[in-house]
Amino acid sequence: MQAKKEKAVESARALPTAQISPVRLVEAELAAVEHKLKLLLDSNESLIAEICHYLVDGGGKRLRPTFILLVYRACGGRDETLEDAVDAAIALELIHSATLLHDDIIDRGLLRRGKPSAYARYGFGPTLIAGDYLFCRAFELCGRFQEHLVRTAAQACIQLTEGEVMEGRFRHNTAATVDDYLAVITRKTASLFAAGGRVAADLAGAPKRTIEAAAKLGTTIGLAFQMVDDLLDILGPEEKIGKPVGSDLRAGIPSLPVVLGVERNPELRTLFQNGALADRTSFDRALQLLRDPRLVGEARALARRQVDVARALLDELAPSMYRDGLATLIDEQLDREV
Amino acid sequence: MQAKKEKAVESARALPTAQISPVRLVEAELAAVEHKLKLLLDSNESLIAEICHYLVDGGGKRLRPTFILLVYRACGGRDETLEDAVDAAIALELIHSATLLHDDIIDRGLLRRGKPSAYARYGFGPTLIAGDYLFCRAFELCGRFQEHLVRTAAQACIQLTEGEVMEGRFRHNTAATVDDYLAVITRKTASLFAAGGRVAADLAGAPKRTIEAAAKLGTTIGLAFQMVDDLLDILGPEEKIGKPVGSDLRAGIPSLPVVLGVERNPELRTLFQNGALADRTSFDRALQLLRDPRLVGEARALARRQVDVARALLDELAPSMYRDGLATLIDEQLDREV
Repeated sequence: MQAKKEKAVESARALPTAQISPVRLVEAELAAVEHKLKLLLDSNESLIAEICHYLVDGGGKRLRPTFILLVYRACGGRDETLEDAVDAAIALELIHSATLLHDDIIDRGLLRRGKPSAYARYGFGPTLIAGDYLFCRAFELCGRFQEHLVRTAAQACIQLTEGEVMEGRFRHNTAATVDDYLAVITRKTASLFAAGGRVAADLAGAPKRTIEAAAKLGTTIGLAFQMVDDLLDILGPEEKIGKPVGSDLRAGIPSLPVVLGVERNPELRTLFQNGALADRTSFDRALQLLRDPRLVGEARALARRQVDVARALLDELAPSMYRDGLATLIDEQLDREV
Repeated sequence: MQAKKEKAVESARALPTAQISPVRLVEAELAAVEHKLKLLLDSNESLIAEICHYLVDGGGKRLRPTFILLVYRACGGRDETLEDAVDAAIALELIHSATLLHDDIIDRGLLRRGKPSAYARYGFGPTLIAGDYLFCRAFELCGRFQEHLVRTAAQACIQLTEGEVMEGRFRHNTAATVDDYLAVITRKTASLFAAGGRVAADLAGAPKRTIEAAAKLGTTIGLAFQMVDDLLDILGPEEKIGKPVGSDLRAGIPSLPVVLGVERNPELRTLFQNGALADRTSFDRALQLLRDPRLVGEARALARRQVDVARALLDELAPSMYRDGLATLIDEQLDREV
C-alpha cells in the first residue's frame, strides 16, 4: 500500500494545484477503506450481507471517507496511525449507509443511485435490520478510539436522528423558514461531516484550534453538499441524480428550493397549502415554479456562501497538497450542480 | 444513595436466603439506573423523547439491569467503580428498548405491555428513528469503556440483528427444528444477557474464568427467559402478558411451542403448511393443540434444563447474598409461567 500511495502522491505533485483530484490524493487510503469496509459487511446471515453489499457496493461517492482522509493528511496525520483514520472513515461511511437504508424506509424511496432501493428490493423488515447491523458494525469499529472520539461519533448520530424528526415536523409545512431548513440539515447532514473533520484532525494530533476548524470545515462542506443535493432534486435530470426528479418535493420534504420558493412565491405557497402535488398537474406546476432562475440563483448563492466559509477555514491548515485537495473537494460540491 | 443501599442490604440480610428478592438487593443501584436512564431519553426533539419515555417508562421489568448489577456485586464489584456497572446496565437496557421499538415495526405489533405499542401510537417513521436514537445513546455511554468491552456490546447487537434475520428465515416454515430455534434465540435474546454478564464481571475485576462463567450464565438465563416467554404467548392470559394471546403464532414466529408442536403433531404441521391460521377457526385449533399439556411440559422441561445449567454456573461465584439473589432471579424465570 505504501508504494501505491507514494505513486499517487508523486503524480499529484506533478499536477497544477487547480487540477489536484481529491480522490487521487488519498487513493491508497481509500483502497484500504474499501477493502476493510467490504469485509465488515460480511454478516453470518447472508441476507444482511446481501442487503449491505447491495447498498454499499452500489456506486456511492465515498465523499465522507475522502473528506476524513484528506483532513487527516492535511493535519499532518502519519502513516503509523493511518489505520485509525481508515477506521474512522469506515465507521462514518457505515453510519451514513445505515441512515440511507432507514431513510428509504421512512420516505418509501423506491430508487437510489439509479436502481431499486434496498427497501424496494428486500422489503422493510430486512432493510431495517440491515441498517441496525451497519450501525452496530460502526460502533464496534469505534471501540478502539478514546472516549471523547466515541462520544463525538455517537453524538453526531444522535443529532442525525434529531434532524430526521425535525425534518418530519416541517414536512408539508409552509411555515418552514430558511433558518428552520439550516437547523435541519446541520443535524441531518452536516453533523456527520463535522464529526469526521473533528475526529480526523484529532487522530492526526492537530492542536485544539485546528481540530475546531476541521469540525467547522465539515459542517460547511456538509451544508453546501446538502443544499446542492436539494437543488439537484428539482433540476435533475433523473439519469444524473439516480432517482425521479422532485422526489423531495413529492415526499413533502422542506428542501432548500421549496423553503425559498414558498417564502417568495404566493402561487407556490398556495399549491403547498392546498395539500396539492397529489395530482400531476400541480406537481408539474410546482416543479416549474421551483426552477425559476431567480430562485435557483438564490439557492446557489446560499450554497456558495458555505463554500466561501469552508475555503476561508482552510487558512487554519498548513499549506500542503492535501489542503489543496480539500479546496478542490469544496469547489466540487458546487460544480456537481452545473 | 449509599445510605439507601445499606438499608436495602440490611433488610436483605434479615431475610432467609430463599426469599431474597433480587430487585431489593440492588435497589439503590437500580434507582441510579432509573435516574440516569430517564435523563438520557430527553432528546432535544420532543417527539423522540416522548416515544422513548412512552416505551421505557411503560413498566418494563428491568431484568437486564437487575442481572448485570447482581453479577457485578456477586463478583465483588465495589462502590468506587459502581458508575461503570450502572452505565453498562443502562446501555444494555437502551439497546433492548431500541430492539423492542424496531421489533414492533417489523412484526406490526400493536400492543406492548398492555397498551398500544409505540409503533401503533406514533407510526413507523418516528418509532424507527427513536429506536436509532436509543442505539446511539447506548453507544455514547459505552464510549468510556475499554475497547474489548465496547466490542462485546457491539457484537451482542450484531448477533441480535443476525438472530432477527435468522428468525425471519424460519417464519411460517415447518422445517424449523429445536436446534434452529436455539440458534435463533441464542442470538436474538441471550446475546445481550451474555454481554451483560461478561461486562459486569469484567468491570468488577473478576478473573477470566469467572468472566466466562458470568457470560455463560447470561446465555442460559436469556435462553430460559425466552423459552418461558414463548410459552406465555400461547398460554396467556392477555392481562398477564400485555398483548393478545398467540401473537407469535399469528406472526408466524417459530416459537418454542410452535417448533415442538409442528415436529410432534401432524395436525399442527398441516395447519401450518396450509398457510392456515389466517382464519379464526384454524388459529383457535392451532392454539388448542399447542396448549396440549405434554407439549407444554416438554417446553417447560427445556427451559428447566437451562435453569439447571444456570444454577450450576453459580458455583463459579463465591457465596454471597448477591449470588443467592441470582439464584432467585434464575428460579423466577420459570415461575413467571405458573
